[in-house]
Amino acid sequence: MLSKARVNAAGSELELHWADGAQARFHAMWLRDNALDDKTRSAGNGQRLVTILDIPAATKISAAEIVGGTLRVTFTPENKSVTFPADWLHNHRYDRKPSDAIAWTSPAITRWTGADMQANVPRARLSDMQQNRDTLAHWLGAVERYGFAVVEGVPTTSGALCDIVKTFGYVRETNYGRWFEVKAEVNPSNLAYTNLGLQAHTDNPYRDPVPTLQILSCLENTVDGGESTVVDAFAVVAALQAENPKAVELLSGFPARYEYAGSNGVRLRAKRPMIELGPDGELLAIRFNNRSAAPTEDVPFEAMASWYEAYRRLAELIEDKRFEVSFKLAPGEAFIVDNTRILHARTAFSGHGSRWLQGCYADKDGLLSTLASLVETQSPKAAE
Amino acid sequence: MLSKARVNAAGSELELHWADGAQARFHAMWLRDNALDDKTRSAGNGQRLVTILDIPAATKISAAEIVGGTLRVTFTPENKSVTFPADWLHNHRYDRKPSDAIAWTSPAITRWTGADMQANVPRARLSDMQQNRDTLAHWLGAVERYGFAVVEGVPTTSGALCDIVKTFGYVRETNYGRWFEVKAEVNPSNLAYTNLGLQAHTDNPYRDPVPTLQILSCLENTVDGGESTVVDAFAVVAALQAENPKAVELLSGFPARYEYAGSNGVRLRAKRPMIELGPDGELLAIRFNNRSAAPTEDVPFEAMASWYEAYRRLAELIEDKRFEVSFKLAPGEAFIVDNTRILHARTAFSGHGSRWLQGCYADKDGLLSTLASLVETQSPKAAE
Repeated sequence: MLSKARVNAAGSELELHWADGAQARFHAMWLRDNALDDKTRSAGNGQRLVTILDIPAATKISAAEIVGGTLRVTFTPENKSVTFPADWLHNHRYDRKPSDAIAWTSPAITRWTGADMQANVPRARLSDMQQNRDTLAHWLGAVERYGFAVVEGVPTTSGALCDIVKTFGYVRETNYGRWFEVKAEVNPSNLAYTNLGLQAHTDNPYRDPVPTLQILSCLENTVDGGESTVVDAFAVVAALQAENPKAVELLSGFPARYEYAGSNGVRLRAKRPMIELGPDGELLAIRFNNRSAAPTEDVPFEAMASWYEAYRRLAELIEDKRFEVSFKLAPGEAFIVDNTRILHARTAFSGHGSRWLQGCYADKDGLLSTLASLVETQSPKAAE
Repeated sequence: MLSKARVNAAGSELELHWADGAQARFHAMWLRDNALDDKTRSAGNGQRLVTILDIPAATKISAAEIVGGTLRVTFTPENKSVTFPADWLHNHRYDRKPSDAIAWTSPAITRWTGADMQANVPRARLSDMQQNRDTLAHWLGAVERYGFAVVEGVPTTSGALCDIVKTFGYVRETNYGRWFEVKAEVNPSNLAYTNLGLQAHTDNPYRDPVPTLQILSCLENTVDGGESTVVDAFAVVAALQAENPKAVELLSGFPARYEYAGSNGVRLRAKRPMIELGPDGELLAIRFNNRSAAPTEDVPFEAMASWYEAYRRLAELIEDKRFEVSFKLAPGEAFIVDNTRILHARTAFSGHGSRWLQGCYADKDGLLSTLASLVETQSPKAAE
């Protein structure tokens, strides 16, 4: 509920006070641009019907009045009046001190270590995810919050992992196909197709945009070893920042390079930092993959030794067992990782059995969109 | 050809001189990490077989010797000798002054205005692209350099635009489908499906990752109006920077927000700056779309008025006719845009005819990979 509205700066600004004690200033231009009336926004699909150039540069507020739970604002020179819900203004206020921290993470994310998650791996059965909206919302919410989750009850038929993607979004097809085999091969085009252990990594850092989700599904697994592990790289980066903020500055402040040219007709290359921050310092993504890291060329000579020290320390923390959750996939089990955040690894394997996994990629925007839509329309019981 | 190699800093650094006068320093750690021998890199697929933690932190150079066109380096404590081609070292040297400019663009890109491109729109026939590697390489090269190109001879059958994508990569399927109809509708879920003009924009800024390529293909076009225009936003950003560098700093320095919730089950949201720079200042992407711009919440109150002035000036430049290339698609024609760089627009249309376009998304990593592979294996004649 609004308690006070005052027009300041000759109509350029508005100062609002809410009954809960919050207060915030807004600019006339911001309010006009974000007006909610049906001449400014399509009532049908919510899209804005005007461009910034349709709004006079000289826009000011000529009047502002609290009317019940809303604020009525009149703009000159258009002489246009619009209404904003008090709660909408409260939720969208921007008059607050921005964080000057680097590598902070969104409140939607809970960073974790092995101790937090080893006994609490989020799991659901595929058939429940397909049939029960609350189960699906819960599982998708875990992927948003923790960056990984397990699926059980996946048919052990080729390509069935795409059914997991269908519950929330769309497969990202690449040169590896809509899905791909992860089996030991004699002349592998990729080291993933051997029985070697693989250091914790994100997939395809040589791609731009990288696939933001990966699913690995198990069809057979009777070898010795071949266990899967996952690591929350956002927790690792937070630990690195706590012990040496300069290391995070170095790894986020210069691009790294990645390359994959293991198959005919494929020359994938990308130039992006190992730790990607948004302009406001938000930790957005990690790219970490020893196999496809190309020579670093964008770090000045004077900074290269320190950059390598930071890289080494990041790798040490990534291999620190305290960050690791491990499990051995059984046939019919799959796991999903947020490939911008969660590193995955496997231990070497041997023995007379077979290990047959399939992998596929998808994107997070579809997953988060489906989740947001489910949460909006969720049954009250599940939302408790 | 190398003319001199000197080990410095007690074996931590190497100083190289080439016959062409170039010189550069390298760190022992960088050289060891990027060694090209078959214990460090898989001879089959080029992937690195060791991690940074397999390389001793105390690595130094104990000897360096020019042998013909190569450099032979011995590392302690591993007592390991490897050989680098002189040209490889020349091409990968990093001992140079980094740019302190913001919003610079890669040499692979040529920024353009309407005067440059209106009479030089890159074009190829789909059948030639499918049958002739040099034609395809030429067309893909134009997409890399100019960010857009036209395709002729596309079958006017539904979904045929996916055949364009097949020449270089993979369709990015989204909630709009593998491809989607762009036709005027009575109750449109998106303003694209009306006869309104659309301001120059990038598609789907509310998606993360955004689709980095878009194709629009024409099946029918007998209306008055409905012309297509494209604008090189990288040229526009360069112009904005030339007249007001602070404006580029503001639009790249704070995230904007985008949202689309026009269909059931879809709540797409992204938080990314309008102008995206890499950590080294490289201009990587623009997101510009009045329809799906959500309220800006991440610009501090003190900077918001200036941010809006920068946004307005960017919009004015985008609408400046000097940046525009325009054409009217005929049935059987399509165009592709780099959706991280090129804005596209359409004029309003009316009349008794019909306008039926189809659109689809794809990604640039596949296109650039196919291009790089074609160029590597191109016939000498075409490479001239």
